[in-house]
Amino acid sequence: MLNIQKRIYELLEVAHPDDTASRVTDFFLFVLIALNVAAVILETVEDLAVQFEAVFFYFEVFSVAVFTVEYVLRLWTCVTDKRYARSLSGRIRFAGSWHAVVDLLAILPFYLPMILPIDLRVVRALRFFRLLRFLKLSRYSESIRIFGKVLRSERSELLVALFVAGVLLVLGSSFLYIVEHQAQPDKFSSIPAAMWWGVATLTTVGYGDVAPITPLGRFLGAIVAVMGIGMFALPAGILASGFAKEMGKRRGVHDVCPHCGEPLDAGDSD
Amino acid sequence: MLNIQKRIYELLEVAHPDDTASRVTDFFLFVLIALNVAAVILETVEDLAVQFEAVFFYFEVFSVAVFTVEYVLRLWTCVTDKRYARSLSGRIRFAGSWHAVVDLLAILPFYLPMILPIDLRVVRALRFFRLLRFLKLSRYSESIRIFGKVLRSERSELLVALFVAGVLLVLGSSFLYIVEHQAQPDKFSSIPAAMWWGVATLTTVGYGDVAPITPLGRFLGAIVAVMGIGMFALPAGILASGFAKEMGKRRGVHDVCPHCGEPLDAGDSD
Amino acid sequence: MLNIQKRIYELLEVAHPDDTASRVTDFFLFVLIALNVAAVILETVEDLAVQFEAVFFYFEVFSVAVFTVEYVLRLWTCVTDKRYARSLSGRIRFAGSWHAVVDLLAILPFYLPMILPIDLRVVRALRFFRLLRFLKLSRYSESIRIFGKVLRSERSELLVALFVAGVLLVLGSSFLYIVEHQAQPDKFSSIPAAMWWGVATLTTVGYGDVAPITPLGRFLGAIVAVMGIGMFALPAGILASGFAKEMGKRRGVHDVCPHCGEPLDAGDSD
Amino acid sequence: MLNIQKRIYELLEVAHPDDTASRVTDFFLFVLIALNVAAVILETVEDLAVQFEAVFFYFEVFSVAVFTVEYVLRLWTCVTDKRYARSLSGRIRFAGSWHAVVDLLAILPFYLPMILPIDLRVVRALRFFRLLRFLKLSRYSESIRIFGKVLRSERSELLVALFVAGVLLVLGSSFLYIVEHQAQPDKFSSIPAAMWWGVATLTTVGYGDVAPITPLGRFLGAIVAVMGIGMFALPAGILASGFAKEMGKRRGVHDVCPHCGEPLDAGDSD
Repeated sequence: MLNIQKRIYELLEVAHPDDTASRVTDFFLFVLIALNVAAVILETVEDLAVQFEAVFFYFEVFSVAVFTVEYVLRLWTCVTDKRYARSLSGRIRFAGSWHAVVDLLAILPFYLPMILPIDLRVVRALRFFRLLRFLKLSRYSESIRIFGKVLRSERSELLVALFVAGVLLVLGSSFLYIVEHQAQPDKFSSIPAAMWWGVATLTTVGYGDVAPITPLGRFLGAIVAVMGIGMFALPAGILASGFAKEMGKRRGVHDVCPHCGEPLDAGDSD
Repeated sequence: MLNIQKRIYELLEVAHPDDTASRVTDFFLFVLIALNVAAVILETVEDLAVQFEAVFFYFEVFSVAVFTVEYVLRLWTCVTDKRYARSLSGRIRFAGSWHAVVDLLAILPFYLPMILPIDLRVVRALRFFRLLRFLKLSRYSESIRIFGKVLRSERSELLVALFVAGVLLVLGSSFLYIVEHQAQPDKFSSIPAAMWWGVATLTTVGYGDVAPITPLGRFLGAIVAVMGIGMFALPAGILASGFAKEMGKRRGVHDVCPHCGEPLDAGDSD
Repeated sequence: MLNIQKRIYELLEVAHPDDTASRVTDFFLFVLIALNVAAVILETVEDLAVQFEAVFFYFEVFSVAVFTVEYVLRLWTCVTDKRYARSLSGRIRFAGSWHAVVDLLAILPFYLPMILPIDLRVVRALRFFRLLRFLKLSRYSESIRIFGKVLRSERSELLVALFVAGVLLVLGSSFLYIVEHQAQPDKFSSIPAAMWWGVATLTTVGYGDVAPITPLGRFLGAIVAVMGIGMFALPAGILASGFAKEMGKRRGVHDVCPHCGEPLDAGDSD
Repeated sequence: MLNIQKRIYELLEVAHPDDTASRVTDFFLFVLIALNVAAVILETVEDLAVQFEAVFFYFEVFSVAVFTVEYVLRLWTCVTDKRYARSLSGRIRFAGSWHAVVDLLAILPFYLPMILPIDLRVVRALRFFRLLRFLKLSRYSESIRIFGKVLRSERSELLVALFVAGVLLVLGSSFLYIVEHQAQPDKFSSIPAAMWWGVATLTTVGYGDVAPITPLGRFLGAIVAVMGIGMFALPAGILASGFAKEMGKRRGVHDVCPHCGEPLDAGDSD
């Protein structure tokens, strides 16, 4: 019994490279998740939704069935993991873990209308919770894990950069509001509204739906744009260098001290 | 007496990490400033301004009261600082310092209409001087200090890059003015007007409100755009590398080899 | 006979730097390819197409003649290369190689209407296959080879970055679809339609044809824009650093100290 | 006589740091050039042109007078420079040098209508040649010299990057032309017209005046946009790193070999 539990747990968890059966399970679940995301996306295209209504429905039922079995099996077998060893309290702790919550949220929207008497409009809104199945990918995707790590390691830099960018956004948008409010009372109706201009400008997206038209507004807007680019490009630069560092580590390219020849980041446990 | 003065001065200044009472004062003032900025922003949304008129008013009175007490206390206690030791001349020098001027400007707009008989429209304009309270944040925000330092240390690089970018902006805009003036006399009415196109293009914001329409104008505009990106991306790059250097220093990562302890960038005196 | 074959093969292949005749052949073919691309481009300008109809036609006939002779000669002489030594099987393998397929596709559209009875509309579409002649450049262009190499060496980094960018694109676009669908049913008609907004925003192109108009949509859109810039700037950064590395190698700047001659990046095997 | 010539030559050339008189001359000419550029720009604003017609006119006469005297003096004194030692042939060679040609072009448009009977419209066009006075700045501006040097030293990298970017631009625009021509025959009227879309997209300027509207066009456009950003960001990156290197050199920050301690770029004559 314990052996079957242990084997199932192994199959469901991310596979060791030479456990072929487990890798097949992972791959199957990975593909099923990807297809689910694709289904949610394509179902919003009205023509497809009407034409393939049955396909979408049966695929949804099949997916929920698989994900439900997966969830139940995980809950049953998690006790073979040292972290969740106790029969009840271990399972409760497991159910509260990030991946388990995601797994539950991925199937709940399907069962909810059966249990609770809910409004049809809410049911429609619940459909989009299926997009949360995307998060199930985070268990299998190395890429997302790498990014999570980069975000954590560059946390303080990112916060500093975002704070300064935020200050610039508020100040720049306020100036433009003061200057342009008279000329375009509909577009620069308030500072929050002017911040839509601010974000579009500082990120250099520049939709063009809101733009200053007075000479002074354009002059100030130009200064904000030039200054802002540097600020908003910073987070991108921080991410890029953090990413390069992380990828270097994974490749085993460790910088070496030119004095003693020892790797510089040996103390950095991965 | 002197002890109380000294203690109040300590409380108001940025706290030592283990002076809990002072940290609480700092935190209280920090939050009050942030709420003030939020209030100025939200008050420009007409619906909110009308609905919460009283809330905004009493919050403003409360804030000004606190900031006034803060300013008076600072002025009273500053003599305990060696830099402003003399009773009168020290206080005058303190009142002329950056932070004290900012503190005064943060409360003056409230008192001005009481003292001077001013136009109602000027009073309305004075409201936005409250945004200057944002600058009070600069005393508490590590992030802003870091940026100030980066800007100073990369001053010469930034000036060179901005000068070249400016030359390109003027030349590019002039060319486009010459070429497009005939076809779009309203949008390319003068070289300063064409510079609005220039800024929008070289920063890659590209609102689309002004764009060349003649084949020659588009050809020249394309060349300016391609050339300009490099120029305008430079300040961003300079800021990013200066920021990375500064953050490295703060982390104490003076680039020292963890094994032999020798600094990796030995010749780099801060 | 074999000598002539060998010499022709040498002439057609990329020249050794001191084989002048072969370099002239390369240069002639390079210029002819470039002119062909220019011709395809200019022929789409109606005025030019009408005015220079004859010029375009005879240039096309001349080009196809040259490229046909080139193709036949390559097929005839390829057996002098060790890789394609066998008379028949070698030639078949050669004909299946990348460059040979490109060479064939470059001339086929001209002959196809003579052999098969095809619709005139298809004939018109076939014209654009001449753009494939652009690919013939890849044999001569060092630049394109360098890029190919950079893309290969940074493959894994690029895939990780693109995967995360893709996840962000899908999630961000889905959020915006959910929020904006009611307000702009024509522009945010489905998630795939919303992804057009997503790409325009995350790449910071920002055409402005699709943009959120509801406050919540703008708020979410702003967050997606700020977050997304970093993600979409990553591939650019990866390419740039890979390119810098590759160019450094080509310059022979194997980062060797000019004084003691020791390589600075000793462990870096190419 | 020769002494006066020599002194005048010194005064006009860029000053040695401790030659105060020469620095004053340089500064005066620098300011005059800057004011001239400002005048050309402001004169295109109709209101200013009408109101300050006399000011602009007398300033122009004054400037041309100064620049003419400067040019004549340079021509007279250049023989004291070893490079232009011979009385006639030296002066001819000097007159053909970059700076001398720029100096002549800066004053010629003023004299031309006096000498030749030219059309009034040509006279109007000649006004803009005064913008060439901007180039006179290149003698005094360190910033522009630094950039010139960076452009030269990164020449090969920039060419490779621009070539690949050009290939992508042509291919991407052609694809979009083929796909969108039917749907928007006015905007995607030819491949050159589609290249206006291409430049706006690949530089991420995105005016929005031309954008794909068919699903296939948007799909291809999205791919081109994502791929293109990397390519068009490359020149910016190359410039930035070249600029950082050059500024580092000027600061005397030479990279040092970790093996022998000698500076790595000692052999690189500045």
